[in-house]
Amino acid sequence: MQPILLTPGPLTTSERTRSAMLSDWGSWDGEFNRLTASVCGDLLAIAGGDRTHACVPLQGSGTFAVEAALGTFVPRSGKVLVPSNGAYADRIIRILQVLGREARIIEHREDEPLDASRVAAALASDPAITHVALVHCETGTGVLNPLDEVARAVASHGRTLVVDAMSSFAAVAIDVSTTPIDVLIAASGKCLEGVPGMGFVIASKANLSAASGNSHSLALDLHDQWGYMQRTGQWRYTPPTHVVAALRSAIDQFVEEGGQPARGTRYRMQCGELVSGMRQLGFRTLLADDVQSPIIVTFLAPDHPAYSFPELYRRVRDSGFILYPGKLTRIETFRIGCIGAITVQDIARAVGAVGDALNAMGIRLGATS
Amino acid sequence: MQPILLTPGPLTTSERTRSAMLSDWGSWDGEFNRLTASVCGDLLAIAGGDRTHACVPLQGSGTFAVEAALGTFVPRSGKVLVPSNGAYADRIIRILQVLGREARIIEHREDEPLDASRVAAALASDPAITHVALVHCETGTGVLNPLDEVARAVASHGRTLVVDAMSSFAAVAIDVSTTPIDVLIAASGKCLEGVPGMGFVIASKANLSAASGNSHSLALDLHDQWGYMQRTGQWRYTPPTHVVAALRSAIDQFVEEGGQPARGTRYRMQCGELVSGMRQLGFRTLLADDVQSPIIVTFLAPDHPAYSFPELYRRVRDSGFILYPGKLTRIETFRIGCIGAITVQDIARAVGAVGDALNAMGIRLGATS
Repeated sequence: MQPILLTPGPLTTSERTRSAMLSDWGSWDGEFNRLTASVCGDLLAIAGGDRTHACVPLQGSGTFAVEAALGTFVPRSGKVLVPSNGAYADRIIRILQVLGREARIIEHREDEPLDASRVAAALASDPAITHVALVHCETGTGVLNPLDEVARAVASHGRTLVVDAMSSFAAVAIDVSTTPIDVLIAASGKCLEGVPGMGFVIASKANLSAASGNSHSLALDLHDQWGYMQRTGQWRYTPPTHVVAALRSAIDQFVEEGGQPARGTRYRMQCGELVSGMRQLGFRTLLADDVQSPIIVTFLAPDHPAYSFPELYRRVRDSGFILYPGKLTRIETFRIGCIGAITVQDIARAVGAVGDALNAMGIRLGATS
Repeated sequence: MQPILLTPGPLTTSERTRSAMLSDWGSWDGEFNRLTASVCGDLLAIAGGDRTHACVPLQGSGTFAVEAALGTFVPRSGKVLVPSNGAYADRIIRILQVLGREARIIEHREDEPLDASRVAAALASDPAITHVALVHCETGTGVLNPLDEVARAVASHGRTLVVDAMSSFAAVAIDVSTTPIDVLIAASGKCLEGVPGMGFVIASKANLSAASGNSHSLALDLHDQWGYMQRTGQWRYTPPTHVVAALRSAIDQFVEEGGQPARGTRYRMQCGELVSGMRQLGFRTLLADDVQSPIIVTFLAPDHPAYSFPELYRRVRDSGFILYPGKLTRIETFRIGCIGAITVQDIARAVGAVGDALNAMGIRLGATS
């Protein structure tokens, strides 16, 4: 019995998705080129970008795609406004530092969503800012940021918007044909429920065309990969063929489930089951319900002398569920993901396993609300 | 019936290797950390680097690992000597250009191996050169370069050696305990017969320790990944979990086969069968036999009016074998790989399929020798 991953990617995939990796593919072969083209076409359609954008796949993790997008689309003389409320926005800032791109940061509390009016004010006051880089669902906490509001503010000030939608894409509605998003970044192993190993960047063709020579890297140059793929239908460097085949299967299953609306509904149900169950056990969420994404939930460590996350983790793992550590520096937390090829019943069983672990550890908490 | 890939990675993997991808793994879980540690430990042992070197894994293709190694180990003020006899050395040069690292190139013909005495002379005459970067088996043609000779020349001049051993590692003998190699780069989906999706860099701990702050990239910073893995046992960013699991299985099978000596022997037999069979059909190899690696063979396009590589490719593919296009710019060639989880009998059948295709195309060539 394999454990169920309650982690925000890698996550639990379906047997059908994993079985798609039982074939080998030649990276120069027409059949594989068609596989890549169909995956990219479907990703573009999911984002609503068929007419205006292109999808550029990239080997590696989501962070590789984020760095690639920042390096490719922000000119070396650019300045990036980063409204930050968590670890993944901080990672964008660190990437910009390493790349030598100027950054201006708007700090927010980790338990509050980004404030579009602060973004608008910064843009109005600082004409040197060329780009805004934003994390849609801040996986460090689970806050869902107001993408549409920020995007409208950025567009109305004529700047370019780069969105890290790693853990929201395919689960939360994103439509670049109605929300002005220039560059949208996600990966195979998140809410599409593929296996990890590749990211992809959905970028407006106007931005792609203008991005020649920006990149600090050959391997991470999305402009170069876009041009090469237009000419040849191929990845520039050896693609993770099995990961691509798994993503093809995962997208098929996503469509069969009913696409983003259905997936979002299932994740919201799973998230609701998780939060209500954990509250009955006496846990408190970091976030208020109105800013909580249906992707991942941060729980505060209970204030009890017998509590230890390593012991909770081990006991819950022995019951078949893998939890996720917290990512806050100031307060002790842990996280539980709501995503993957799982069901509400799996979540209910996981909450039961957490309750059993608490009992075994001699911890009894009063229910919270 | 799946086609057999006669391509130098992705290549044909065993069913056992692919089946290792049928489980999901939590990237923070102890079980996955142990998987990563065992893979890295075995790669280090295969290279003979247990006491002096460390193995740093990296998501992405082999080129990502090459760029990461150049960016991590060559300081921004460094100067790299690149003896070049093919496409992959040229890729190293292009990476250095993008990274803004100074390069000096020693051009060779594409059908001749690198000349260690020219490397030694360049090092003697140019004290500004800090590093030498070398492709061991030049996959663009199949030339096996004299790694040991060049390494001794580099060491005797006190410079640092970076070796792209992408298509030779695990098939051709490489031992960093007897050959002075500071940095050795390879990937999962080549002669180890794993699936593509990760590279790895085996670097001396002395070079790793000195590499802080060199990298142009966050995602490709091997020093940062090395330190993080020492502290946590983890990859910094989402690992390609299924690719790692497949590599674990592939290494098990590599050891069971008898390690590098046995794998090298099998590949040499497969290569010998390929070359002799193709010569009987009338094809000529680009390379003389004494510089031919047992990895991939470049064949000259036959001088016949009815010859067309796309048609040959299609016909041979219909028989179940995938060939590889040439990578030379000046003369028309194609390539056939000798590596992967295949047998001499598979090669014999592939040669038969090439012969059938020639017959169907109305091409009859005299046997060559």
